[in-house]
Amino acid sequence: MEARNILRFLFLFLCVALMLLFTWVHLPYAPPYANELLDCATNSPWCTSKNRLQSKQSNLLKEPPIPTSHRNHASDTPHHPLDPLTIQELNKVRSILSSHPLFKSSTYALHSVDLEEPEKALVLKWEKGDQLLPRRASVVARVNGNSNVLTVDLSTGQVTVRETGLPSGYPMMTIEDMTTATWAPLVNGDFNRTIIQRGINLADLACLPISTGWYGKSEENRRLIKVQCYSMEGTVNFYMRPIEGLTVLVDLDTKQVVEISDKGSNIPIPKAANTDYRYSAQELHQVMNLLNPISIEQPKGPSFTIEDEHLVKWANWEFHLKPDARAGVIISRAKVRDSDTGELRDVMYKGFSSELFVPYMDPTDAWYFKTYMDAGEYGFGLQAMPLDPLNDCPRNAYYMDGVFPTADGTPYVRSNMICVFERYTGDIGWRHSESPITGMQIREVRPKVTLVVRMAASVANYDYIVDWEFQTDGLIRIKVGLSGILMVKGTEYDNINQIPNQENLYGTLLSENVIGVIHDHYVTFHLDMEIDGSDNSFVQVNIKKEQTSAGESPRKSYLKAVRNVAKTEKDAQIKLKLYDPSEFHVINPSKKTRVGNPVGYKVVPSGTAASLLDLQDPPQKRGAFTNNQIWVTPYNRSEQWAGGLFAYQSHGEDTLATWSDRDRAIENKDIVVWYTLGFHHIPCQEDFPIMPTVSSSFDLKPVNFFESNPILRIPPNVENDLPVCKPAASG
Amino acid sequence: MEARNILRFLFLFLCVALMLLFTWVHLPYAPPYANELLDCATNSPWCTSKNRLQSKQSNLLKEPPIPTSHRNHASDTPHHPLDPLTIQELNKVRSILSSHPLFKSSTYALHSVDLEEPEKALVLKWEKGDQLLPRRASVVARVNGNSNVLTVDLSTGQVTVRETGLPSGYPMMTIEDMTTATWAPLVNGDFNRTIIQRGINLADLACLPISTGWYGKSEENRRLIKVQCYSMEGTVNFYMRPIEGLTVLVDLDTKQVVEISDKGSNIPIPKAANTDYRYSAQELHQVMNLLNPISIEQPKGPSFTIEDEHLVKWANWEFHLKPDARAGVIISRAKVRDSDTGELRDVMYKGFSSELFVPYMDPTDAWYFKTYMDAGEYGFGLQAMPLDPLNDCPRNAYYMDGVFPTADGTPYVRSNMICVFERYTGDIGWRHSESPITGMQIREVRPKVTLVVRMAASVANYDYIVDWEFQTDGLIRIKVGLSGILMVKGTEYDNINQIPNQENLYGTLLSENVIGVIHDHYVTFHLDMEIDGSDNSFVQVNIKKEQTSAGESPRKSYLKAVRNVAKTEKDAQIKLKLYDPSEFHVINPSKKTRVGNPVGYKVVPSGTAASLLDLQDPPQKRGAFTNNQIWVTPYNRSEQWAGGLFAYQSHGEDTLATWSDRDRAIENKDIVVWYTLGFHHIPCQEDFPIMPTVSSSFDLKPVNFFESNPILRIPPNVENDLPVCKPAASG
Repeated sequence: MEARNILRFLFLFLCVALMLLFTWVHLPYAPPYANELLDCATNSPWCTSKNRLQSKQSNLLKEPPIPTSHRNHASDTPHHPLDPLTIQELNKVRSILSSHPLFKSSTYALHSVDLEEPEKALVLKWEKGDQLLPRRASVVARVNGNSNVLTVDLSTGQVTVRETGLPSGYPMMTIEDMTTATWAPLVNGDFNRTIIQRGINLADLACLPISTGWYGKSEENRRLIKVQCYSMEGTVNFYMRPIEGLTVLVDLDTKQVVEISDKGSNIPIPKAANTDYRYSAQELHQVMNLLNPISIEQPKGPSFTIEDEHLVKWANWEFHLKPDARAGVIISRAKVRDSDTGELRDVMYKGFSSELFVPYMDPTDAWYFKTYMDAGEYGFGLQAMPLDPLNDCPRNAYYMDGVFPTADGTPYVRSNMICVFERYTGDIGWRHSESPITGMQIREVRPKVTLVVRMAASVANYDYIVDWEFQTDGLIRIKVGLSGILMVKGTEYDNINQIPNQENLYGTLLSENVIGVIHDHYVTFHLDMEIDGSDNSFVQVNIKKEQTSAGESPRKSYLKAVRNVAKTEKDAQIKLKLYDPSEFHVINPSKKTRVGNPVGYKVVPSGTAASLLDLQDPPQKRGAFTNNQIWVTPYNRSEQWAGGLFAYQSHGEDTLATWSDRDRAIENKDIVVWYTLGFHHIPCQEDFPIMPTVSSSFDLKPVNFFESNPILRIPPNVENDLPVCKPAASG
Repeated sequence: MEARNILRFLFLFLCVALMLLFTWVHLPYAPPYANELLDCATNSPWCTSKNRLQSKQSNLLKEPPIPTSHRNHASDTPHHPLDPLTIQELNKVRSILSSHPLFKSSTYALHSVDLEEPEKALVLKWEKGDQLLPRRASVVARVNGNSNVLTVDLSTGQVTVRETGLPSGYPMMTIEDMTTATWAPLVNGDFNRTIIQRGINLADLACLPISTGWYGKSEENRRLIKVQCYSMEGTVNFYMRPIEGLTVLVDLDTKQVVEISDKGSNIPIPKAANTDYRYSAQELHQVMNLLNPISIEQPKGPSFTIEDEHLVKWANWEFHLKPDARAGVIISRAKVRDSDTGELRDVMYKGFSSELFVPYMDPTDAWYFKTYMDAGEYGFGLQAMPLDPLNDCPRNAYYMDGVFPTADGTPYVRSNMICVFERYTGDIGWRHSESPITGMQIREVRPKVTLVVRMAASVANYDYIVDWEFQTDGLIRIKVGLSGILMVKGTEYDNINQIPNQENLYGTLLSENVIGVIHDHYVTFHLDMEIDGSDNSFVQVNIKKEQTSAGESPRKSYLKAVRNVAKTEKDAQIKLKLYDPSEFHVINPSKKTRVGNPVGYKVVPSGTAASLLDLQDPPQKRGAFTNNQIWVTPYNRSEQWAGGLFAYQSHGEDTLATWSDRDRAIENKDIVVWYTLGFHHIPCQEDFPIMPTVSSSFDLKPVNFFESNPILRIPPNVENDLPVCKPAASG
């Protein structure tokens, strides 16, 4: 019996060894090395993998290399209390932590290293020329399987461990978490066997790390991820070639495969044909007339300046702008100059995309868990890739880089992460012509020019374009565009007429064997308003039908505006209603206009979607911040992330919904407005193989903030001022 | 007694004579003469009045004259069956009618003279090169107090009287109706006395013709209008200086004052200060930094062509475009070229703004009736003034003129009524970057360039900007912008703290003694869809929460798309619901994509508002076409105007709501979709003295219309193709 056991063991050992050897040979890429990262700035920390791609797939990747930033950030220094940590500061944090007892002789990973913003009161008091406020870093680190939140004082070197008291959840993944997760299955024999059985060359494998969410006991007490893979054979758009039904559960801390679920062996891998979206891969025939070159031109240069790297000044606006690993873009201290008094007036202390929630609508084994929280799980800013000049932003754009740390704390530069540009679209700021009725010869029209701050995050397949657009009339438009590539499902069907009940497809048949699965997108914005000061109130101005009394009027009804000041948080849990509409004002009750209206801004929703999932559904508990479209909370330093600080695998105890249910007082207080922009997406064939951008927006708009129209004095365009242009020489 | 009576009579006679003399001396302007109209093309038929203004108010009106069109339309000939009537044709209609028995020895006015479009089947068959289809004019004329609808055959000269069978309502006013209405009060002594008592010089008077609506017996059997007046003293923005509470009821046919209501003698006329919005009237100090010149540039010229005056061809789009006196802009035969097959495919047979409904929310005497229907009462196109090049449209715009008849049938030219331009806004057509997760070095982005068709109608105070924007991905965005000047109400209050109950103000105190009254705007679009042919179906794709069954999934719920094909009109009376959402598809059930989806377009709402008025309120009966956001009717040649052919003073028997309630079959039929875009407007101080543009839109978007993304092949921008620009010499 013992000999037999030894033989069994040897046989198994050989099998595993062979598999490992095979895997190693076919391993698509090697892990990045942290010490190479700073040199390889543009695409770090994964840039090492590009060598593999350039050598192995040179036939597929003919694009020129993406330009790196020409700015050297090594000597950057902070100027403003809200400036992000610089390379020098990040290095200092790394050095302080490496000598701290907690990190000594331990494996650790830094999940985030951000500026710990000084107290709001101090920032509000701070003026240019004042001494910079003490610089502190807020660090989230995993050490020996535990999550820690630390404050590192950069001047004293002191490290303070903060108590989070969070019962569940893990920090945002590091890029290293994501990349290592995608290799983990490759050392698993069962996995490789399955791949080969499906007829896929292991070298053609592309795998994605998919956050598991939380559904109960099996997800508790370990940090898990699900890995799903695709075939890259014949296309760079591997997303369209899913190895359907194969899900590998991986422990993110141990990097071990926990479980493999394979329920799709009967489902073919969809074909590669017609999936490549790159220009270089297109057939040459053009049926559409090519357009003549068209461009936004400003030969005298842009009208904005960026002082000290982060302070944007344009027209009547001034605001602080910085990249953030989790939020993407943070706008702070937005102020607008009053056209009457010349005074700079506070509008918003801080605005950013706080969390995303992207639930897919397929309850089956390989899909039910896809309920992404792209900021708290993946880092919305970490996924914001360098923008493409001339295409992502117009020619006249300015680009801002991000500086982030890798898991070991080494800083790297994400170049061209944000762009800032002036926009003229041909739209009209205001106009009036006198009509034939009055016979006066008047025609006054002002063109609308705006300033746009943009980033584009590519969270694996999807691309989110986030714009903050500032108008001279005081309006701020926040717009989210969705493009990129669908997350699709393989199917045995290649025509709808084969499908007994189309409703049970969970989506749309987009191409042979490809289903675009129905899903939603929610982006929740944190809008810390500051209307002429911190103490503001939220007023719901309800538009209500009023019946006239008998004999009062030939009219039976009219609409009346009824103002309700929200006393506590529950008064401000708002579901939008077309047939019971309201305006939503944030006012300063202590400041009135000349004729007595409280000064304010209103939140103006546009097209949106509401989450319809069961409130008790685990993903909806975690995404409970989408239960309303608007919430208002009293300012609380710790309430920044709508899905909770530790959103990864959280149980939903630390969301905006939980905070708001405390029902704290919000009248005439420092308040934060939260707005959720939603999209239902039933895919259609036009979304294949890449989606034309769909966007929606909402506005923050002055309402009795100014005494009168603030853009009366802007001049009209006259021919003599406009640029003189000629076609390009090559044209 | 008799002597006393004679004395009384003499005294009264003298009083009236004096008043008439006084009025004549102070009469602000003389009526225009029809024979001057064609010469005075740009602003006719009211251009004669500009002399008055230029002489009397030269201090207020320093603007350069508005340029007239350089195009000579005298020899225009029609090329396409849908081309509007030319000057020659309008003259022919006039000549045919003048010799017709109905018009002989009668006073008459032509309220509209439009092309009677040929039968749809004939137009669909017609191709360029074919003989032009017989040209007919559709004429609405008032003769001796009766409304007549006539067809005039332009080749045979035959005139056919059509039976409308309409129990109520009158045709759209002529410009002459509107201008004569505004003078009518001036020959009334009581009126003039009131004006003088209010301290207003009669020479400073500006009056507006306000459609009365219909509220019962007192409005029946006569064509009425209400006239309200303003003081022009010290400002061209007389709208801000209402003579509150004074309403003159005028009979439009007899031109006689029927009744004067004066209930505002205690209300002061608001001050002129700070109401002028013209650039020339602004104080010179600038607190906002001036912006550097910015422009959309296309030095190689636009990429669109306009063949035969009306056929627009751009990128993959082709459509017929024409001005219309009632609708403003009509887009016909919109077709998009399939990027796979090269085939031109039908999308929409005809699209236009069919009616507007603008109810004000004040039930008091001088306001309750303000419930405008701007197309059917005033002529949305008649009010579309010449656009301002460089400000209303960008530099690269092409302008199209309108040709309309005056009340006696004389044609005149409205120059620059519509503009067409290509737009690049810096937005992104589609994009994808590969992320750190996959490590592939891909960044593909395509700029979005669109084609915009624009007009701006100034219906007295308000300005409506209507855009039809065509995208290369097949999407059509229809956008309405609101600007111009509020209709305001005088009040004794100059601060809110004087007002006992602000809710009863019917609006917002905007400035001292000025209330911006709450109102709604609804624009209802007629969208005669033609998805690859005439027979289409309307499918409501309902997004429905589905609970999973026990043990089915860790998920409790997901969303499912449930398709409901509308069988009859009542199935397609749609109220939008955020918490019971749907997509709204117009499909061709006979045409499927390769994988079997029916080809279609969807109506995609964005921000909108619903009318909340009592359904039995007289204005809501007349505006019943706003009772739903979407309606679908079977095509019926006579159902073009959502508020009825004779909307003026109609009782609401001939609206879209009435037609739809017939509940006709609409499945797999030639169908028309109607969409209503709504706005609630609670004015704010920023709207004073002129409003920054507010806009909203909806889309017609391909949904499985194409086999795949139709803009895969468009090239990215490259530096070498873009224009070379330098600042203007003057800069």
